Amino acid sequence: MISIVYFPKIGAPQLNLPFSALRSALADREGLVWVALEEPDEEEITRVMVNQFHFHPLAVEDCQSDGYQTPKLDDYGEYLFLVVQSVTSGGLLEGDTTRELNIFLGDHYLVSSSLRKVTAVEKLRKRLERDERIYQNGSDFLCHALLDQVVDEFIPHIDQLEEEIDFLEEAVLSNPDPQTLQRILRLKRYSMNLRRVISPQREVINRLCRDDFPMIDPHSQMYFRDVYDHLVRIFDMLDGIRDMTTSALEVYLNATSLRLNEVMKALTIVSTIFLPLSFVAGVYGMNFHYMPELGWRWGYPLVWLVFVLIAIGMLGYFRKRRWF
Amino acid sequence: MISIVYFPKIGAPQLNLPFSALRSALADREGLVWVALEEPDEEEITRVMVNQFHFHPLAVEDCQSDGYQTPKLDDYGEYLFLVVQSVTSGGLLEGDTTRELNIFLGDHYLVSSSLRKVTAVEKLRKRLERDERIYQNGSDFLCHALLDQVVDEFIPHIDQLEEEIDFLEEAVLSNPDPQTLQRILRLKRYSMNLRRVISPQREVINRLCRDDFPMIDPHSQMYFRDVYDHLVRIFDMLDGIRDMTTSALEVYLNATSLRLNEVMKALTIVSTIFLPLSFVAGVYGMNFHYMPELGWRWGYPLVWLVFVLIAIGMLGYFRKRRWF
Amino acid sequence: MISIVYFPKIGAPQLNLPFSALRSALADREGLVWVALEEPDEEEITRVMVNQFHFHPLAVEDCQSDGYQTPKLDDYGEYLFLVVQSVTSGGLLEGDTTRELNIFLGDHYLVSSSLRKVTAVEKLRKRLERDERIYQNGSDFLCHALLDQVVDEFIPHIDQLEEEIDFLEEAVLSNPDPQTLQRILRLKRYSMNLRRVISPQREVINRLCRDDFPMIDPHSQMYFRDVYDHLVRIFDMLDGIRDMTTSALEVYLNATSLRLNEVMKALTIVSTIFLPLSFVAGVYGMNFHYMPELGWRWGYPLVWLVFVLIAIGMLGYFRKRRWF
Amino acid sequence: MISIVYFPKIGAPQLNLPFSALRSALADREGLVWVALEEPDEEEITRVMVNQFHFHPLAVEDCQSDGYQTPKLDDYGEYLFLVVQSVTSGGLLEGDTTRELNIFLGDHYLVSSSLRKVTAVEKLRKRLERDERIYQNGSDFLCHALLDQVVDEFIPHIDQLEEEIDFLEEAVLSNPDPQTLQRILRLKRYSMNLRRVISPQREVINRLCRDDFPMIDPHSQMYFRDVYDHLVRIFDMLDGIRDMTTSALEVYLNATSLRLNEVMKALTIVSTIFLPLSFVAGVYGMNFHYMPELGWRWGYPLVWLVFVLIAIGMLGYFRKRRWF
Amino acid sequence: MISIVYFPKIGAPQLNLPFSALRSALADREGLVWVALEEPDEEEITRVMVNQFHFHPLAVEDCQSDGYQTPKLDDYGEYLFLVVQSVTSGGLLEGDTTRELNIFLGDHYLVSSSLRKVTAVEKLRKRLERDERIYQNGSDFLCHALLDQVVDEFIPHIDQLEEEIDFLEEAVLSNPDPQTLQRILRLKRYSMNLRRVISPQREVINRLCRDDFPMIDPHSQMYFRDVYDHLVRIFDMLDGIRDMTTSALEVYLNATSLRLNEVMKALTIVSTIFLPLSFVAGVYGMNFHYMPELGWRWGYPLVWLVFVLIAIGMLGYFRKRRWF
Repeated sequence: MISIVYFPKIGAPQLNLPFSALRSALADREGLVWVALEEPDEEEITRVMVNQFHFHPLAVEDCQSDGYQTPKLDDYGEYLFLVVQSVTSGGLLEGDTTRELNIFLGDHYLVSSSLRKVTAVEKLRKRLERDERIYQNGSDFLCHALLDQVVDEFIPHIDQLEEEIDFLEEAVLSNPDPQTLQRILRLKRYSMNLRRVISPQREVINRLCRDDFPMIDPHSQMYFRDVYDHLVRIFDMLDGIRDMTTSALEVYLNATSLRLNEVMKALTIVSTIFLPLSFVAGVYGMNFHYMPELGWRWGYPLVWLVFVLIAIGMLGYFRKRRWF
Repeated sequence: MISIVYFPKIGAPQLNLPFSALRSALADREGLVWVALEEPDEEEITRVMVNQFHFHPLAVEDCQSDGYQTPKLDDYGEYLFLVVQSVTSGGLLEGDTTRELNIFLGDHYLVSSSLRKVTAVEKLRKRLERDERIYQNGSDFLCHALLDQVVDEFIPHIDQLEEEIDFLEEAVLSNPDPQTLQRILRLKRYSMNLRRVISPQREVINRLCRDDFPMIDPHSQMYFRDVYDHLVRIFDMLDGIRDMTTSALEVYLNATSLRLNEVMKALTIVSTIFLPLSFVAGVYGMNFHYMPELGWRWGYPLVWLVFVLIAIGMLGYFRKRRWF
Repeated sequence: MISIVYFPKIGAPQLNLPFSALRSALADREGLVWVALEEPDEEEITRVMVNQFHFHPLAVEDCQSDGYQTPKLDDYGEYLFLVVQSVTSGGLLEGDTTRELNIFLGDHYLVSSSLRKVTAVEKLRKRLERDERIYQNGSDFLCHALLDQVVDEFIPHIDQLEEEIDFLEEAVLSNPDPQTLQRILRLKRYSMNLRRVISPQREVINRLCRDDFPMIDPHSQMYFRDVYDHLVRIFDMLDGIRDMTTSALEVYLNATSLRLNEVMKALTIVSTIFLPLSFVAGVYGMNFHYMPELGWRWGYPLVWLVFVLIAIGMLGYFRKRRWF
Repeated sequence: MISIVYFPKIGAPQLNLPFSALRSALADREGLVWVALEEPDEEEITRVMVNQFHFHPLAVEDCQSDGYQTPKLDDYGEYLFLVVQSVTSGGLLEGDTTRELNIFLGDHYLVSSSLRKVTAVEKLRKRLERDERIYQNGSDFLCHALLDQVVDEFIPHIDQLEEEIDFLEEAVLSNPDPQTLQRILRLKRYSMNLRRVISPQREVINRLCRDDFPMIDPHSQMYFRDVYDHLVRIFDMLDGIRDMTTSALEVYLNATSLRLNEVMKALTIVSTIFLPLSFVAGVYGMNFHYMPELGWRWGYPLVWLVFVLIAIGMLGYFRKRRWF
Repeated sequence: MISIVYFPKIGAPQLNLPFSALRSALADREGLVWVALEEPDEEEITRVMVNQFHFHPLAVEDCQSDGYQTPKLDDYGEYLFLVVQSVTSGGLLEGDTTRELNIFLGDHYLVSSSLRKVTAVEKLRKRLERDERIYQNGSDFLCHALLDQVVDEFIPHIDQLEEEIDFLEEAVLSNPDPQTLQRILRLKRYSMNLRRVISPQREVINRLCRDDFPMIDPHSQMYFRDVYDHLVRIFDMLDGIRDMTTSALEVYLNATSLRLNEVMKALTIVSTIFLPLSFVAGVYGMNFHYMPELGWRWGYPLVWLVFVLIAIGMLGYFRKRRWF
């Protein structure tokens, strides 16, 4: 789907420009055009990127390929080509990975493209209707608004991760079963994958706010700097989650080991009490003809006394050793 | 709450300037004004930052937002905007995290703002009354005094952490229970969080003492350098605490493992002594008609001799193996 | 085997130029010559590299030596010398390591050489027949096409590694036997070896797209940049595989430990039930003359009641402890 | 204690200049003055540093404060201010940490100060009496001599650490008791603390031999380079000690685990032999009226044969499994 | 021992120049002189380095000291001073550490010195006799030949390490005894020590092939680059060895843990079968007067049936649990 928005220098923005009017809109170098390709097919990509904008074949190829792309920034002189990764609201931790968003930033136009649905694009379109500041400051500010939206989408995901780790920290203490381990490891892997996405993305934004590009106004760089700060914070939070996950894993493994200790103590206490008792009982079960104790009047009660003494002695010893 | 302090070039400082006199005080470019916003509401922030100082919207937004902010330094040309993190005296390790302090440093003014109570601001205000050196050296020196106070607040916290680790090193040896593990892991997490705060804060101060800013006098940089050295030291101490925590964890885990060993030895000693004894007793409890030993006169004492010999032999073997 | 391809400025490419025509082809500085040495013997290397091209002895030596070479880029002024590592399709994880490909990139020629079969060379030769873009853009573009092919060969290998790790993640849960451990460790080692190859290779390509070389056109650098991005992605994927391998190892080790726990619980449950029961049975197996219980009418059923009560009590205790 | 040494351009050095003559000695800009403050009180620091040399208040404050200071180098234009850490001979590993030495290096003077006794200062004073090369090459060479002495004091400490690790490597094999663990962990912590001191100290010396300071002659830099090389070597040695400590810890933990294995084997061997034997004995201890074996003439010897066969079978099985 | 080789510009090389002729040989600035000090005494060092070449005292001191020196490169203007570490063929892993070789590289001379025998020097001397290329390209090429020889000596050592790790990978599976652990840890330490030597050595060679030194011809730098590549490869191989050692350690520790599991299973199987059996036998060994089963005609065979059923039931349970 191709949706085009045109903001002339003077006059009302046209939020649904037909494709046929794109060429004339682009000719107005004072205006601003945003072409958003959402889940486009091959033909739409060719029509916009190749026939209309004549983008570099390598960049177009990146927009067409479906595999995971590391976030990057390519400078093609007249325009910048950005690959960033976005997340969709909801559905985290369910195998849903990040989604690629490609952005071409020119002097007076912005082309965004994503093979899969990216909610940030939609949300920005809605914000355009009520906040005209977004398009009155040129293509660089519009690009900032889009990146800002993309980065903001990460926040609820990070919050969800923090809730998960809070739950797991509780769970490793109260109920350290194998499923808890599974969730810990999954969270660990997920947050490390996210780190690997955020890290180059941060670098892309950093270049936008640090390097000199003709289509980016020095005043706008402050705003990219703000997006950069958000990513730094997200990265920090992911670091914290990784640390906490490692701690949870340590508690879990220790819980397993403590449980083994507890089981072993139970076994040892029962064995060390009853093995001697059984031996004594076995002794007086022997059939020797000459065993004087067997004939004693108080032999049987005495043996019970011995039983009780052994048991008390053993229990006392364990108590001293603080085994229970 | 807005509290304004005005230090004219000549004459006594006015420690409680009313807000209405702020404009004229700022007009005196030879003087120095410090506006401190403590737990301000939206309206106070707007009144001071937007209407009076016309600070950049992004910086104002940072002052308004309540979430965790990574320490940073933004150069807006006429003023610097700093985000630093402070701690409050007391109450460490009780879920109380750091508190954000925002500082605007201009040529002849300083604006500080914090949504939650920051004790460093209060303490600096009190020091102003008895130490005029603080405000006689310009806004950069005043800013240094504030940052110095913020950094000094960390010291008692670090001391508390060191006491905790000293206690834990003792505890893992004398009483390695699960609560000790909990405290070790909590301390570890806490000190790692603190490291993540201190590290960018150090970088902020480093830029103040290294880079060229028009509102910072080269002579003052020496003082920022001093604050920087304090943060380096704090960072070093946190490194030490982390190492010691890791060691404590290792001792703890080994204590668990040693305890298991001890339990296993007790079990093994008792079993390997009494199982053979019980077997011998069982043999002479058999009911075969032709068992010559049963009829012997000294059979029973002889069996006791066997019992004793087996027990002594086993104990000797364990002694040789150094099992007890 | 020496195979020579000659692309004159005007006219059809000659895909199988005889060696005797090489000299005159090279004299045409407007054309493009690609000399591919595949599994060459000493004499062929000397004939081409020493007698014809007069390459530096050190570079020639590198082409002759059979051991592992770290990927590198040497600038000899008139030509660049590249050592890259390739993989062959199929046969991964079977002890088959990477294969060295040496490339000399001159202004209007390309010499490639590999002591062992490198499938990327063959594939590029086939693509030449149907895609003339490859040789119409000069030697740097031809070199890019070769490197692109080399890097593309890695992708199915990485996919195979990801399938292996998916299988192993499943296996550590369902069937954590020593063979699974072996495969985990082998995968870990393999992916770490691959990382060590990819990392300097990436650096070589990075220099091609960043540094200034007379034989590389600025327009071509974009294409080397594309190859570089592929390598960055491959490196990212290897990072992910390493992390997942580490997780699988953790689950495996925990499975071992859980299994020990399960075995110990079975032992403890049986022992703590039957040791007391056997003791009671032993007591009434004693031969004291005066044991009143033995004569009771209901003695035997009562003892069975005791047996059942002990067993139920123990089982209840274990249930409470959640041991089964 | 203030001790002043004055080396006039011409004539004998005056090793115990009274404080009153300091001013005139300093006026001789061709000479060289070394003021050493050893364990000074507040008043002595003020008299020398503030009243005489007018050092910067921040530097003076650093000399007065008693806490740990990270080694650093501050350039105050007319003089350099160095904070280095020294050790005292003997008494290592006994809670004795490093001791701070502050050095002011001017064009023709050197001021050293340390709140606690630093043996390097004393030793240098003694060397002055017999080696005039030290003071004939200016203040920078004298400073180098002092730093060289400070660094040399570390060597015997490192040697002591290496002896300790040699002892511990032996001990973890022959006698892996908890005290050995304690010593391993203490050594690990100590060497990591030392690393943290050496690392910034190395950086300080590196700046002395690399940067351009007016009071340091290019020829002297070679000598600072030599001190730097010593610190690099010490750092390398500490790295080696850390690695060996980690290995010792691994051997220790494995020894614990091996011991558990050995205990478990003993228990298993005894149990698996005697439990079946006891069962057989128990069978023939039953009181059924019709048990034909009991009446057999050779029943009893046959049962002994069964006992022996079971025992031999079990032992053979264990032998096959290489359990002993 | 001092051995001097003199290569005049014209004429045959003099492989054993007497010391007395050294001065005149050095006066020939067109020729090339190599002075090799092998295991020299104090007097020889003084005679050559101090009296003849007037080398800097610090460099001479480095040649005299016997302790370990980190490889380094000092630029003394007229000559370079190199400290490199060499190994001797054979005798690896037997406590034999690396041996220091000091090299002075001047415009037309090379002085090498080593307190202990370095085989690379000897080998180079032999190669001089048959390969005149070595001395016809100036002192820098001669120096390269020496360093190349030094680096080549490492290769058989690395091969030996790889054989050792191959053996150990086999051993941890077939025979994981404590001696295997010892060898793993020794190999790990050895390869880490070697890494620490190779890393700065690589840096030294890197400076030779990258920096501008008057006595090194740009053409020769290619050759130093070749030596550098060798060191990079050696470093890579050491990295691989370290990884494989870590894997071997992991397999070893897991083998210990598996063995414990196996022992525990044997114990549990035997106990859980025979404890219930013994209990049943014990029941019918009781002496109650009224035990109807004892008088049954088929009581005894029935009890055996119970025994067999219990045993089969237990074994079936274990089989289901896959315990054997």
